[in-house]
Amino acid sequence: MRNIKLYLRYDGTNYHGWQVQKNTDLTIQGILYEALKKICDPPSPPCGCGRTDAGVHALFYVCNFIAETNIPAEKIPYALNSYLPRDIRCMAAFDEDMDFHSVKSAVKKTYTYYIQNTPIPDPFKDPYMWHCQYPLDIEKMRDAAGAFLGEHDFYGFSSSGRSTKTTVRTIYSLKVNKDGDIVSIEISGNGFLYNMVRIIAGTLMFCGCGKIRPENMPEIIASCNREAAGITAPAKGLFLTEVCY
Amino acid sequence: MRNIKLYLRYDGTNYHGWQVQKNTDLTIQGILYEALKKICDPPSPPCGCGRTDAGVHALFYVCNFIAETNIPAEKIPYALNSYLPRDIRCMAAFDEDMDFHSVKSAVKKTYTYYIQNTPIPDPFKDPYMWHCQYPLDIEKMRDAAGAFLGEHDFYGFSSSGRSTKTTVRTIYSLKVNKDGDIVSIEISGNGFLYNMVRIIAGTLMFCGCGKIRPENMPEIIASCNREAAGITAPAKGLFLTEVCY
Repeated sequence: MRNIKLYLRYDGTNYHGWQVQKNTDLTIQGILYEALKKICDPPSPPCGCGRTDAGVHALFYVCNFIAETNIPAEKIPYALNSYLPRDIRCMAAFDEDMDFHSVKSAVKKTYTYYIQNTPIPDPFKDPYMWHCQYPLDIEKMRDAAGAFLGEHDFYGFSSSGRSTKTTVRTIYSLKVNKDGDIVSIEISGNGFLYNMVRIIAGTLMFCGCGKIRPENMPEIIASCNREAAGITAPAKGLFLTEVCY
Repeated sequence: MRNIKLYLRYDGTNYHGWQVQKNTDLTIQGILYEALKKICDPPSPPCGCGRTDAGVHALFYVCNFIAETNIPAEKIPYALNSYLPRDIRCMAAFDEDMDFHSVKSAVKKTYTYYIQNTPIPDPFKDPYMWHCQYPLDIEKMRDAAGAFLGEHDFYGFSSSGRSTKTTVRTIYSLKVNKDGDIVSIEISGNGFLYNMVRIIAGTLMFCGCGKIRPENMPEIIASCNREAAGITAPAKGLFLTEVCY
């Protein structure tokens, strides 16, 4: 048996997130599992590095599966891609030790959230960025970002539907960048709660618009009160960009 | 009465081109006309700078319409965009003299064709670029490009369904650029026949793959034989990028 690790890249627009659902909604995991069955028989269901939500994208997603197959690792992406829809691509495959686990072995994940800060949204960026027509004050967003660093109870920055035992997470870095009309929020941590990155993005956007004062961020985080934070930014602007093992 | 010029930007994926069809297919012109009727009553049908084909995009499209309205030109994009789908945006509007005509006044048009030259296509670029997995020889494509410059009868580089009197056109420039994995073909001319840019892109791609020898291009053009040229590149990689008046 082999434990095969895959690097995926996908446009999540048309999918109900990574994880297979009880209903018949299309999911990345479900689609990938069907494709894996075509190239090796029988594979284990693929185990992913995290549950990206419906509509969330991945520039870099890691998953693994157990199977008996003779296909060399470097040829697996080509075999698999011929059975995958064009908005999901396997970019690379590697043989791993049997103890490698896409979730449990991950030590750091990075998400990037994109905001298009223009009077009129560009139709080519619109499917992948949140649009904000009011000029964002980047310095205020950066001031607020500092409050998230380190270990905190992020209960107030998660949506109902939490299934985790603890809502304490550690944020390693949170950078706010501006490149022309595009504001990006890059956040790294040891793990993220349901909707946590999108609520942080929505809160930083409120700071940039002047709706929340950056100096109030430590208090808002400590309150563990969802109402005190900003809105949940839409899924379309969120990309998983790195997973470290 | 005012003659109002609009700058549009659109993702053509979901549309059957610019021009209104006899059937009920969605077109950019049709959608725009309906939106114009909402903001000024009654407008003329919008007159566009060219017939982009089904699935072709525009980073910069110019059209004009005649109407009686009190909306200041700088506010028209905002009024119009509220009635347009998000993949079509009016970026700017200007009052023009009554003799301005989007097609007749145009002196130069530029199209850019994008090819993703990688072993595995990036799903985020795939909707807007042709994918070629074989390494393209850019120098051969550039050598071939030179043959298109100047005035030629491009009968062999047009598809059936031509409605124009003459198939002679003048190409002002034809540049082949490479930026990482992306090869772009930028072509400027006084006008283009039906599918002409896509057939030129397909032919240059054949030159880059070694299927057509660059030194044979003058002969292929002079032959006026569609069969001698390369295939018609798919619509999804084509963008109208500039119109000069």
